[in-house]
Amino acid sequence: MVVKVYGPICACAKRVMVCLTEKEVEFEAVPVDIFKGEHKHPEYLKLHPFGVIPVIQDGDYTLYESRAIMRYYSEKYRSQGVELLGKTIEERGRVEQWLEVEAQNFHAPAYNLAIHILFAAPLGITPDLELIEESASKLENVLNIYEERLSKSKYLAGDFFSLADMSHLPFTDYIVNTEKKYLIRDRKHVSAWWDDISNRPSWKKIVELYKPPI
Amino acid sequence: MVVKVYGPICACAKRVMVCLTEKEVEFEAVPVDIFKGEHKHPEYLKLHPFGVIPVIQDGDYTLYESRAIMRYYSEKYRSQGVELLGKTIEERGRVEQWLEVEAQNFHAPAYNLAIHILFAAPLGITPDLELIEESASKLENVLNIYEERLSKSKYLAGDFFSLADMSHLPFTDYIVNTEKKYLIRDRKHVSAWWDDISNRPSWKKIVELYKPPI
Repeated sequence: MVVKVYGPICACAKRVMVCLTEKEVEFEAVPVDIFKGEHKHPEYLKLHPFGVIPVIQDGDYTLYESRAIMRYYSEKYRSQGVELLGKTIEERGRVEQWLEVEAQNFHAPAYNLAIHILFAAPLGITPDLELIEESASKLENVLNIYEERLSKSKYLAGDFFSLADMSHLPFTDYIVNTEKKYLIRDRKHVSAWWDDISNRPSWKKIVELYKPPI
Repeated sequence: MVVKVYGPICACAKRVMVCLTEKEVEFEAVPVDIFKGEHKHPEYLKLHPFGVIPVIQDGDYTLYESRAIMRYYSEKYRSQGVELLGKTIEERGRVEQWLEVEAQNFHAPAYNLAIHILFAAPLGITPDLELIEESASKLENVLNIYEERLSKSKYLAGDFFSLADMSHLPFTDYIVNTEKKYLIRDRKHVSAWWDDISNRPSWKKIVELYKPPI
């Protein structure tokens, strides 16, 4: 059974696809044109009532929320591909902690930078310059803590690559493609971490295959 | 070894304490006076560099982010107390999905209502009436989807109580103590779900023991 992933050009779907790639699970990308509002069509809303990207279909099992989908496949194929949850319950606790940090602290300002710098034109919105600076400032504070953490361990949850690192890929990739790339590049350990995780063959393949219209 | 939970009067620490109670894990509540800024003191920042509540200490294991802590103890004591992760990998996937929905869709507007209606006075801030109405409107949309979901299953992740329901306890408890309680009470299935989960002895005990200053 091939897993269907809806909305492959969107950042959050890339989280799912890079996870499936690392877990060696075959998938089929199903396009959803968010610029035409297809994620709000009744057929899509049957799969995902909140009308956002992504959702997966795996036989008759449907699941949404990218971080939940990543956890599900990392658990389901625990012994296949790369271990992404840590080896012990304590390591998994650490993975969960940094996944939550990504979701609660990193994501919102990174999302604002992506939307208002990279996607303002295709979305037809006027960039909010105040929000850009406020988001960059928030991200400075968050990344200062990452820098400290990454000076002590190679990856966020410890000395092993995990879902916690993976979850940062799509929006960090956007940031390093803006004038705000210094947020990453001016921090020695964050910059080295980014070089490491963004050079994984799984990520390079997903970025190459599913480009957003910018 | 007794688990230390920092900041028991805060909503997010209550997520952790109700989880520990359901898992029959002994804990000690360590007060942190956020109204005096104790969560920004150097000693606290050593435990939690982001300076927010809660953090736990369990011997030499320290963990922050309430939803990560809940997952850690639900996994560590899988066969003790109430099963909170579902019985199968598919059920756990569903638990993770609704935990993410809570974190990504429910939490922010519910938090805004709590801060600007209940806590404006003790925090010394002027309530932002526009934000209150905007947050209530966002929550209407989210809870309409919950109502549909809860018309089909008794709890969010299925016909079993889980972390997904538990994670909603602290902020829904705030909402039903404001003039915005109709958001919960005007929805038949959401209202019945709230009565069910808020009447669990674990939650009633935590609310009784650790009251915020309102």
